[in-house]
Amino acid sequence: MAITVTNQVSTRDRLLRAREAASKLAMLSTSEKNALLLAIAHAIERRAESILEANREDIETAGLEGAMRDRLLLTPTRIKEMAQGVRDVAALPDPIGETLAEWTRPNGLRIRKVRVPLGVVGIIYESRPNVTVDTAVLALKTGNAIVLRGGKEATCSNRELVNILCAVPGIPEGAIELLDSSTRDSVHELIKARGLVDVIIPRGGAGLIAFVTENASVPVIETGAGNCHIFVDESADFEMADRIVINAKTQRPSVCNAAEKLLVHEKIAAEYVPRIVKKLIDAGVEVRGDDRSRRLANNAHIAPASEQDWGEEYLRLCMAVRIVVNVQDAIAHINRYSTRHSDSIVTRSEANAHLFLRGVDSAAVYWNASTRFTDGAEFGFGAEMGISTQKLHCRGPFALAELTSSKYEIVGTGQVR
Amino acid sequence: MAITVTNQVSTRDRLLRAREAASKLAMLSTSEKNALLLAIAHAIERRAESILEANREDIETAGLEGAMRDRLLLTPTRIKEMAQGVRDVAALPDPIGETLAEWTRPNGLRIRKVRVPLGVVGIIYESRPNVTVDTAVLALKTGNAIVLRGGKEATCSNRELVNILCAVPGIPEGAIELLDSSTRDSVHELIKARGLVDVIIPRGGAGLIAFVTENASVPVIETGAGNCHIFVDESADFEMADRIVINAKTQRPSVCNAAEKLLVHEKIAAEYVPRIVKKLIDAGVEVRGDDRSRRLANNAHIAPASEQDWGEEYLRLCMAVRIVVNVQDAIAHINRYSTRHSDSIVTRSEANAHLFLRGVDSAAVYWNASTRFTDGAEFGFGAEMGISTQKLHCRGPFALAELTSSKYEIVGTGQVR
Repeated sequence: MAITVTNQVSTRDRLLRAREAASKLAMLSTSEKNALLLAIAHAIERRAESILEANREDIETAGLEGAMRDRLLLTPTRIKEMAQGVRDVAALPDPIGETLAEWTRPNGLRIRKVRVPLGVVGIIYESRPNVTVDTAVLALKTGNAIVLRGGKEATCSNRELVNILCAVPGIPEGAIELLDSSTRDSVHELIKARGLVDVIIPRGGAGLIAFVTENASVPVIETGAGNCHIFVDESADFEMADRIVINAKTQRPSVCNAAEKLLVHEKIAAEYVPRIVKKLIDAGVEVRGDDRSRRLANNAHIAPASEQDWGEEYLRLCMAVRIVVNVQDAIAHINRYSTRHSDSIVTRSEANAHLFLRGVDSAAVYWNASTRFTDGAEFGFGAEMGISTQKLHCRGPFALAELTSSKYEIVGTGQVR
Repeated sequence: MAITVTNQVSTRDRLLRAREAASKLAMLSTSEKNALLLAIAHAIERRAESILEANREDIETAGLEGAMRDRLLLTPTRIKEMAQGVRDVAALPDPIGETLAEWTRPNGLRIRKVRVPLGVVGIIYESRPNVTVDTAVLALKTGNAIVLRGGKEATCSNRELVNILCAVPGIPEGAIELLDSSTRDSVHELIKARGLVDVIIPRGGAGLIAFVTENASVPVIETGAGNCHIFVDESADFEMADRIVINAKTQRPSVCNAAEKLLVHEKIAAEYVPRIVKKLIDAGVEVRGDDRSRRLANNAHIAPASEQDWGEEYLRLCMAVRIVVNVQDAIAHINRYSTRHSDSIVTRSEANAHLFLRGVDSAAVYWNASTRFTDGAEFGFGAEMGISTQKLHCRGPFALAELTSSKYEIVGTGQVR
């Protein structure tokens, strides 16, 4: 019963189908949507072999190695996790229909603000085929149609997954549309389709995100880039600081919530900089620094950090160290160079912690914890669509509620102005 | 003590100043902000004469007539109202600092989602000089810097008003920046200033809004266009329907929440169409219609409505009438042609009303009331920044809360992953 997804359907037609589907999806009840999700989970498990086969084709064609290959690779365990992820989303509360506010005006008009789907959600992403299923399912749960534009390297995996999802009985035609990944034309058309698409969420590298935000006329939720900082204040517990710095830098250096910069209060720098630099180097981290930190760590090999370093997201085992004069200086540095993702202060001073929490203009600001916690699952959301680094619509990790809009339903008895 | 606003400062420098100011404004307490607002109200009243003088210059230069002249005109009464508007905003609750959610994770991390300013808000608008003060004050109340790009015709009035506001002691330099209105260059630079400006709100005609949404790389809140519908269902109370149709069409035809289209259930069309067409014509409305409604109103002069009519926002005393077969047909017509602003059903049927309220995909959907109520003041918000017709960030009339974003403050005791 699989519906074959071919590239013969134009992008425009796919978007029109998605728009049509959105009206139908918006009217589904919570139990109807959850039943579809459970059927999807079942279909994924039942079709595991064909998914693995399609993925093998991608792996062979792409010829990637190491982390890149791993991102693309599907395994029986990963497919099981994918299906379990779908069941987890089915178990989450449905935000649609929720009354957000309700009041009656002196003229008797009853106004209710109610949560509704966004409509058509466009996702542009790279590599990991599980994003295909994760995002399609979040969209479905919130009554949205989704238009997917995955990476070229995952073409076969994505096509097979979308075929399986679309073949589930009851999924409206157009609810999940996969665009041609062989050319950039589909990206262009998608991001310009104002009126047909309600939001674009780019998930991927800095280049992709910059391209989308610069060129889209559809509203965008910018995600992901993370030049994250740890500031070790003068009253910091050094052992806690060590633990947080090493964890935030090394536990998974390729992700956006990994720390890239270390700021140290000048009063403790003579003691703390040599100590942490040694630990970082022992952990395999390439360390760079400003002049003062390089002098302090004179026995270790620290390359000079350039102006470009302070704004860069390394996404690898590299960290730049800078001495700051106080918490205000740390805040100013972060607000100047950070990508407003996640930044942390390690301090025993409640006053400095509060200055930092309030003053740092980032999506997630930490006191005495690793920046690695900026994540939907770690926040307890049960799912994640992405991490917004813009201020409009949503900020930080976002999931179901942020795939919704609202409308006003107003009930009168003939009122006029 | 007036600071002279000259055009010698480049747009880029103004945006940088606004960015700087935003950090300071974000740290102001509610009482500090309210004190600034009250001082602004006082300054506006004290400087009424110079405002009127600047406005006379604009009026003479523009050489406008009728409604256009009236939009530009300031009078002593309007200046008093302007100052009172500022005091009203001062009296509203400050959304900044509000805890939106708060929870503790199993690992002990305490997560708090807190309301923060957006940062730098850009407004592009036309004609009415009171928008200058209204929006600047809403921005200030929410700790945002504002960059204003007004219409050329209001240059002197806007400059004088901004001079007065900026001269109020305690207003940070850059908190209110007025861009050059003599060329479109400033608009281009403003809407491309991603990283410096957090949101652009265009307020004005369809041309302006289309230009901004098509070309901005800064996130936009689209406002205003309103092709609004009234659907008179088969069970409608005709007297109520008359009242609502005439009010929605004629009370103020030039505004976005005025009705432009009338849909009539076919079962009552033979009786209701001739009746309402006569009333509309008596009220000075030009009526257009589909073939069926033209035949039904055969004694009245109804021009044929073209396909273009169904999508058009007339903004004048003109209305197109169409017969529909039922409530589903009405919903389908509206979702196809409306600008998703405001639409109303007149019916005695609760079932049809609920179908309509849920099925019509517009910012405000009414049952037995005029579409003219879609307005910040009529909703009881005490202020209005605009009416969003997009789904991202906010939808419908919006004011203080929608000039904010959020951030996560996370407090730990050394947690790592």
